[in-house]
Amino acid sequence: MGVGTELLLGQITNTNARWISERLAEIGVDVLYHQVVGDNQERIVEALRHALSHADVVIVTGGLGPTQDDITRQAVARVAGIGMVRRPELEEMIRAKFVRAGRDMAESNLVQADVPEGARVILPDRGTAPGLAVEIEATRLYALPGVPAEMREMMEGTVLQELSSLAGPASIASRIVRCVGIPESRVAELTDDLFLASANPTVAYLAGGGEVKVRLTAKASSRGDAEALLEPLVEEVVRRLGDHVFTTTDEELEGIVGRLLRDSGKTLACAESLTGGELGARITSVPGATDYFLGSAVCYSARAKREILGVTQETIDGPGLVSAECAREMAAGARRLFGADLALALTGAAGPQPHAGAEPGQIWAALEAEGVSHQRGLRSPGDRELVRRWAEQVGLDLVRRHLQDAPLPDGPRPA
Amino acid sequence: MGVGTELLLGQITNTNARWISERLAEIGVDVLYHQVVGDNQERIVEALRHALSHADVVIVTGGLGPTQDDITRQAVARVAGIGMVRRPELEEMIRAKFVRAGRDMAESNLVQADVPEGARVILPDRGTAPGLAVEIEATRLYALPGVPAEMREMMEGTVLQELSSLAGPASIASRIVRCVGIPESRVAELTDDLFLASANPTVAYLAGGGEVKVRLTAKASSRGDAEALLEPLVEEVVRRLGDHVFTTTDEELEGIVGRLLRDSGKTLACAESLTGGELGARITSVPGATDYFLGSAVCYSARAKREILGVTQETIDGPGLVSAECAREMAAGARRLFGADLALALTGAAGPQPHAGAEPGQIWAALEAEGVSHQRGLRSPGDRELVRRWAEQVGLDLVRRHLQDAPLPDGPRPA
Repeated sequence: MGVGTELLLGQITNTNARWISERLAEIGVDVLYHQVVGDNQERIVEALRHALSHADVVIVTGGLGPTQDDITRQAVARVAGIGMVRRPELEEMIRAKFVRAGRDMAESNLVQADVPEGARVILPDRGTAPGLAVEIEATRLYALPGVPAEMREMMEGTVLQELSSLAGPASIASRIVRCVGIPESRVAELTDDLFLASANPTVAYLAGGGEVKVRLTAKASSRGDAEALLEPLVEEVVRRLGDHVFTTTDEELEGIVGRLLRDSGKTLACAESLTGGELGARITSVPGATDYFLGSAVCYSARAKREILGVTQETIDGPGLVSAECAREMAAGARRLFGADLALALTGAAGPQPHAGAEPGQIWAALEAEGVSHQRGLRSPGDRELVRRWAEQVGLDLVRRHLQDAPLPDGPRPA
Repeated sequence: MGVGTELLLGQITNTNARWISERLAEIGVDVLYHQVVGDNQERIVEALRHALSHADVVIVTGGLGPTQDDITRQAVARVAGIGMVRRPELEEMIRAKFVRAGRDMAESNLVQADVPEGARVILPDRGTAPGLAVEIEATRLYALPGVPAEMREMMEGTVLQELSSLAGPASIASRIVRCVGIPESRVAELTDDLFLASANPTVAYLAGGGEVKVRLTAKASSRGDAEALLEPLVEEVVRRLGDHVFTTTDEELEGIVGRLLRDSGKTLACAESLTGGELGARITSVPGATDYFLGSAVCYSARAKREILGVTQETIDGPGLVSAECAREMAAGARRLFGADLALALTGAAGPQPHAGAEPGQIWAALEAEGVSHQRGLRSPGDRELVRRWAEQVGLDLVRRHLQDAPLPDGPRPA
């Protein structure tokens, strides 16, 4: 549960919720709810009561600082039906931290030494706000600072250790199978019978950015056992989805392509139009790309396509700048220009306006290599950003398939 | 309220909650709670009931897709005590979207045409999942897709407009002043006395991605009044920060540069090394960039720099690939190659390893134009991604300053 009006105003993103959930999943704690409330005593109290009545453990972040809108301490005391006391040893710790930092201390900082009576204190290393642990009926409540680094320190140093002994032997493991060139509904159709028989492991499908992720999650008494439950299912999912799968280790497509290029000792160059350089940017986001990536000719204007890449006037006047022919000539031009083993070209209409006679979303990708000249056309859904991303996925997937000796797919021809 | 087990497992961050909250704050809607629940019918229903009993408006995101873990539609119907019906016009819309995209449709997609009886439907532009609006007693419930782009489209097209007419007279307005080439502490020093006297408007400083944002927020009985409170303060902040300010309308630097190029009738070409195409990608993320952007020569290898851009062997052997000389020759080469009025080149060591004798973080940017040959060197903090971003900011700012006739800054020379 997060406390902080800045979260409700949308001024910051609740990254704590994600981080804490991920850590809890790793030690086998089921997270039932996230809640966020503002710096308002009544609502914090109500949200705490709601959480306490539904869970065995409640973790609250935020509202432990020295300012007047930091009221989580009081809310916890109220819900637990206990009073507040000032702890002299905390007061001393806070004073000492200011002295050590060479900063003057406003007296208001000492409110951080006020804690609900009988609460266990988690001493801060980084910040000045102590964390709290309170037992309320059968539920354990932790109140931690909202500053991510301070929260993480207490989670890792104290809370996770305590909970993993409470949680007993249950552990969760997850695996992700990522695939391209196949719609989410088809992925589900091909695989979801594997998960109907039992609630463990579970499956979730996530489509976006020109790919589909299949996430498998298993629960068992140890991490190793949970992983063992997943392994045969991952294998079966991969078997059914075939060469659409590009990774089972959650690597990005550009990372996979990079590894394949390095392993094969081949070099790659690109020619880009609608992606404007984003294809090269993705390829070079992988450290060490310099070993196999030579460069990209981003030719946005027709003249640059003609003069730098050698796209013919005949193609420009005929099928146009968004066509299989143009993509092929761009790829061939880039291969020549950079002296590369493989060249990948992307052209298309990113939108929102039609471009060179092509409707927004129309994409052509071309791969040129020794003995290979392949083009693929597609219509991507979505806005400018998504169309570009789709084009990159389609293009990188051509390179992956070529290097893995998988069949190169034919897309439906755009109108 | 977000629905999705992947949120509770910490696999994705709840960016929707932040975005929605920010938009609601802008139209004066107080957000009381965020909740997140997993893909579990009982818990979704309970969370919906909790939300409905506490708020006038409930916005749910996620769980509207075609797969078996998408169960928000059913949960809404259950809470509203109504049945589900298949709407033929939605079925038709979904089929038509697949046909238009040239993709086969699995029958499972048609569950997206099942909606609670009497619900108002928000038709999707991008995706295939319709949004829903249902009145439950005195509360209005919106159910929107979890995919951010699809959710945003419906919020902006429908929900915000409907709510801003419902919301009372308290409004919040925000303005952002964005600047480059000046550290956060200096920005605060120059401006924070303006905000000490009163709690309205408030100020927040945010540094990141090679720039500093100053966010001013005011509250008043109407949006117009809140904006009137901000206007003189924005002017004063801009006066004090001078030509470091590149926008007061929250436009990206590449958008500002694009407008300046269009207004001046000039064309731009780039030469990139460490940014790998990201500079071109940013410039072309602005619709209509084709009017002024010719292209970018992404020359990752030394050979490509020499052969395509004409960087001399003397420079490569002498000052090296990360130097003022190399940046200058790259920019001159790109200007020649593309026949552009202006050319911008970026070279540097993105890290994590040193590159061509330069330490990670070392950047050189060069601008070439009629009568102008300017280079700027800097050391950027941070990882690969941040170093690239810094280089782009420094480079784009050179173009902005040149087109605005502002002085071109000299950076400290890297070691």
